[in-house]
Amino acid sequence: MNSNPPWQMARRAQRMNPSVIREILKVTERPGIISLAGGLPSADTFPVEAMRAASERVLRDTPREALQYAASEGYGPLRDWVAEQLAGQGLKVDASQVLITTGSQQGLDLVGKVLIDAGSRVAVESPTYLGALQAFNPYEPEYQSVPGDDDGPLADALALAQGARFFYVLPNFQNPSGRCLSETRRAELVTQAQALDLPLVEDNPYGDLWFDAPPPASLASRWSEGVVYLGSFSKVLAPGLRLGYVVAPKPLFPKLLQAKQAADLHSPGFNQRVVHEVIRDGFLRDHVPTIRTRYKAQRDAMRAALERHMPAGCHWTVPSGGMFFWVELPAGSDAMALLPKAVAHGMAFVPGAAFYADHPKPNSLRLSFVTVDAERIEQGIALLARALKETR
Amino acid sequence: MNSNPPWQMARRAQRMNPSVIREILKVTERPGIISLAGGLPSADTFPVEAMRAASERVLRDTPREALQYAASEGYGPLRDWVAEQLAGQGLKVDASQVLITTGSQQGLDLVGKVLIDAGSRVAVESPTYLGALQAFNPYEPEYQSVPGDDDGPLADALALAQGARFFYVLPNFQNPSGRCLSETRRAELVTQAQALDLPLVEDNPYGDLWFDAPPPASLASRWSEGVVYLGSFSKVLAPGLRLGYVVAPKPLFPKLLQAKQAADLHSPGFNQRVVHEVIRDGFLRDHVPTIRTRYKAQRDAMRAALERHMPAGCHWTVPSGGMFFWVELPAGSDAMALLPKAVAHGMAFVPGAAFYADHPKPNSLRLSFVTVDAERIEQGIALLARALKETR
Repeated sequence: MNSNPPWQMARRAQRMNPSVIREILKVTERPGIISLAGGLPSADTFPVEAMRAASERVLRDTPREALQYAASEGYGPLRDWVAEQLAGQGLKVDASQVLITTGSQQGLDLVGKVLIDAGSRVAVESPTYLGALQAFNPYEPEYQSVPGDDDGPLADALALAQGARFFYVLPNFQNPSGRCLSETRRAELVTQAQALDLPLVEDNPYGDLWFDAPPPASLASRWSEGVVYLGSFSKVLAPGLRLGYVVAPKPLFPKLLQAKQAADLHSPGFNQRVVHEVIRDGFLRDHVPTIRTRYKAQRDAMRAALERHMPAGCHWTVPSGGMFFWVELPAGSDAMALLPKAVAHGMAFVPGAAFYADHPKPNSLRLSFVTVDAERIEQGIALLARALKETR
Repeated sequence: MNSNPPWQMARRAQRMNPSVIREILKVTERPGIISLAGGLPSADTFPVEAMRAASERVLRDTPREALQYAASEGYGPLRDWVAEQLAGQGLKVDASQVLITTGSQQGLDLVGKVLIDAGSRVAVESPTYLGALQAFNPYEPEYQSVPGDDDGPLADALALAQGARFFYVLPNFQNPSGRCLSETRRAELVTQAQALDLPLVEDNPYGDLWFDAPPPASLASRWSEGVVYLGSFSKVLAPGLRLGYVVAPKPLFPKLLQAKQAADLHSPGFNQRVVHEVIRDGFLRDHVPTIRTRYKAQRDAMRAALERHMPAGCHWTVPSGGMFFWVELPAGSDAMALLPKAVAHGMAFVPGAAFYADHPKPNSLRLSFVTVDAERIEQGIALLARALKETR
């Protein structure tokens, strides 16, 4: 008799690893640390009173429906709302193409599950969103990074991705780079992807968080049959509800739905009804601008602090929306080695290397400007600059 | 330029199919149909007022925490509660082994993701829970059914499962069969599994719904290193919250956690705090007995109706808990062919064939006694008997 049975792991489990960012965050959640490492929205933006009133109404008017099992596709009126909202942004889809997911992270998992075989090629930006790499990794793809510049991935470079199952792109205020793809680049990329028969997976958690002007139209609006589009309520309402959505071309939808059903039957109906109750009468029209105003002021504070404190040889582009600055330290710097020194000084950031599928730039780092107030942003950047100067 | 790109599906997508049960339910949700086909708990058991008060308190006292991103492991006090609750049932685990999931369906998906390679053997009961087959299918296992009798899977037959990644068992009031494994059978199965180095995955959504006496101790309490245990809040509170949990042996926990993080980051923190707020002071001690009383009366109504109406040659065992009767029609009957006739008469059930990994018994069917009142149960069974008599 053996009391330690051989738990034999699936091969894919080798590709699952602790999130570097989450491990770092644990270290940097010490009181007193000015953490610019977070990927969280500001809790000051959560519409608590609207949520409270909506929860009350849902449990008063439709408790049996809200608390019962429900359709895997999602709550009908919420799917309708998503389709209408997207139509207003030039993306014409039927509500039957909208799948409500447990955060847009689940959308990434379902896309991976349905489209990636072991050894399949998957193309990604460089850098790209770490959570997408984590979602895709268990399906054992081979990654192809597509190089780019400040306007986005280079359309010519897309040829590198030919034969990939899809190219994963986060066009608006990307996590981590803050980059927003230009109108011209979007048009070029879609033309090139069509020529290559290369499907696109477009992830858009930050598109509403623009500071001066809305971003150019989505990739999906330019090629509805060739793009899976992912959206989220995490950044415009609250992430703790875990609600996002996938909009899929019709041939793909049934398999995503079946994968969803196998994964968790459906996303919480209570949450879906509460969100719909909050947003149904145009709440976001007034609410989202308050987030934009707040984040823009904090973006400005970080820009000023970076200009004031960072030594020569550092580079960054000022983001026109979203939550992040992406900083490149002077060549030869190592952001991972810098991190413990910065923490010793009392601030934290995320080293950029984690955001590359391959060929990481060790001198890059990500700074969030949304969860720390302007005064502490100034202090945090000053501490970062001091740590950096000591290492040189 | 090709405007219809080649969406190439992963091979595993071939193993994803629409749920037979969900498709049937769509047909049978017509008004006027007495549906005994559901797998839903009774909405009359949902503690709406307690949920309302808890939601109010959570949004009053900890809105920022409840609505923000949170730990992938789950809400600490809820993990503690689960560990304490299980200790009271003889299953001693540390809260660090408890992973909160988006329904126990997600627990099944994560178990499959971490433990099943394409072609791995997975052993299951005969019949087994359809949702588990759906969760495991995308990981492309080969199934081995383990035959059994009214006391559970036959311990001797477990040798058939040698070399399997695990044996999936639902010991308490199984969906679909209603079967509860006897004390003797549990002891034999665990001894045999240990001898075979065969890990067990124990699914326990219905264990609290006993009518006369609690079921024997869990398999996990007899072999803590060799059993993954899954539980759920769906049947004792409400399924629309989508909260369940996995309790894993320590060597397995980190991979399940990483799979969870990749799948949806974490289950909704708001829901976890609301559930904890509802149950923290012993709410379930008074609430669950009200569910037992209700379901037992409806079980009795269905037993009486079956005895009164069903023709000779039909067999069923009276379940001592849970939600289902499992009926075997006379040999040669085909429950799938019977279903449209039953619907024409005004009632619905689920044909049993969907619940077998292989060698389905076409003459079996599942009846739920919890969502329809006693009077309509009587009517529904009378209609079933009438449809059956007409086909013979």
